[in-house]
Amino acid sequence: MSYNLWYWPEIQGRGEFVRLALEAAGIEYCDCARERGTQALVDDMARYTQRPPFAPPYLELQGFVIAQTANILLYLGEHHDLAPSRLSDRLWLHQLQLTIADMVAEVHNIHHPVAMGEYYEDQKAEALRAAEQFRAERIPKFLQHFDGAAQANPGEWLIDHRWTYADTSLFQLVEGLRYMFPRRMAAIEHDYPALLKIHGLVRSLPGVAAYLASDRRLSFNEDGIFRHYPELDGA
Amino acid sequence: MSYNLWYWPEIQGRGEFVRLALEAAGIEYCDCARERGTQALVDDMARYTQRPPFAPPYLELQGFVIAQTANILLYLGEHHDLAPSRLSDRLWLHQLQLTIADMVAEVHNIHHPVAMGEYYEDQKAEALRAAEQFRAERIPKFLQHFDGAAQANPGEWLIDHRWTYADTSLFQLVEGLRYMFPRRMAAIEHDYPALLKIHGLVRSLPGVAAYLASDRRLSFNEDGIFRHYPELDGA
Repeated sequence: MSYNLWYWPEIQGRGEFVRLALEAAGIEYCDCARERGTQALVDDMARYTQRPPFAPPYLELQGFVIAQTANILLYLGEHHDLAPSRLSDRLWLHQLQLTIADMVAEVHNIHHPVAMGEYYEDQKAEALRAAEQFRAERIPKFLQHFDGAAQANPGEWLIDHRWTYADTSLFQLVEGLRYMFPRRMAAIEHDYPALLKIHGLVRSLPGVAAYLASDRRLSFNEDGIFRHYPELDGA
Repeated sequence: MSYNLWYWPEIQGRGEFVRLALEAAGIEYCDCARERGTQALVDDMARYTQRPPFAPPYLELQGFVIAQTANILLYLGEHHDLAPSRLSDRLWLHQLQLTIADMVAEVHNIHHPVAMGEYYEDQKAEALRAAEQFRAERIPKFLQHFDGAAQANPGEWLIDHRWTYADTSLFQLVEGLRYMFPRRMAAIEHDYPALLKIHGLVRSLPGVAAYLASDRRLSFNEDGIFRHYPELDGA
């Protein structure tokens, strides 16, 4: 079976965490709005009167949709064996994914600290201030947490001896932070060797390597979540 | 068995979503930091070298802890029958809870838009601007989503014919918004009758009613997530 995944067609955004897990696992999917356009996504969302997604990404299943990135990954993990089977492991995995989601929300908040619906240019002064504390305190706090999680696992990955959806998500987090904060990341990323090791391992997964080399992988850009505004970066 | 729940002892905060589900279901728990103090919580968090919580709240189980509010509720829902059994229902429930979590994060961002680690007073100008768009656009967008979800269910509750952890969470969301934005909520909350109905039903659950009347229920205050700063409110 092939899934229908719906997400904004011009950005990596939150959808990328789902795309990466699907690509890494070799699960067939249609990235529907990339084929049919933004209006098709808007129209599709309007179809769901019963249990609508609050926002993309969402995954169509037979008779219903799953929204919220971490929720989609929870489902894929359990139904495609991309997650461990032990209860404590599954909860730990989901916990890490939710913490990744928290960091992603904070990243978005940096360029939109006071008005989600307005342009970055109209809240640049506030964004400069938000970026300062994020670079100084939040990036190290989050990356230390993920690096510690990776170090504590006896295997090469975050959990167990094989990749899970949280590994592909950490890959994307490192990619995004390097794009958004190249100077800051160059200065500190080597403090998190276990995290960087996972980043490298994920990049080398056959499904991920093929995806990154394909035109299915969009480039980062300044409409997405991770945006490179040089003025927000600093070592 | 009785759970150990760890959360900051002086605020409702994110821990309150867990407390309410436990109280509504009559599940025994120790609100450990309320008994032993903040330092005990800090010390307890430092114990976990293997799979530490990123932040409270967390629930101790035999041999491990579960952190992230929505993850704790996911566990409680499945293990104490506070969630439906059908896959599509369970995913929809968790999806709603994650959307509640997103709104809670946005609420926190209003009084701390640019510097999570600094005082409100030092980012008041930014907060005033953040509150404006939140009141005008985000509150209606989120409440409409939850009201629509409630209206679409043939039963009285969000899902099915009995309460789940997302119902108790919506109760808390309405309570918090009323505390933080009394003028705004008075002006618009009646646009969301199905949501208000659930709020009333949750308040009348015997476990919740007993909890609210007890000294276990902390008051809202200006150290928590929902804070009443009159200058941030407006009809």
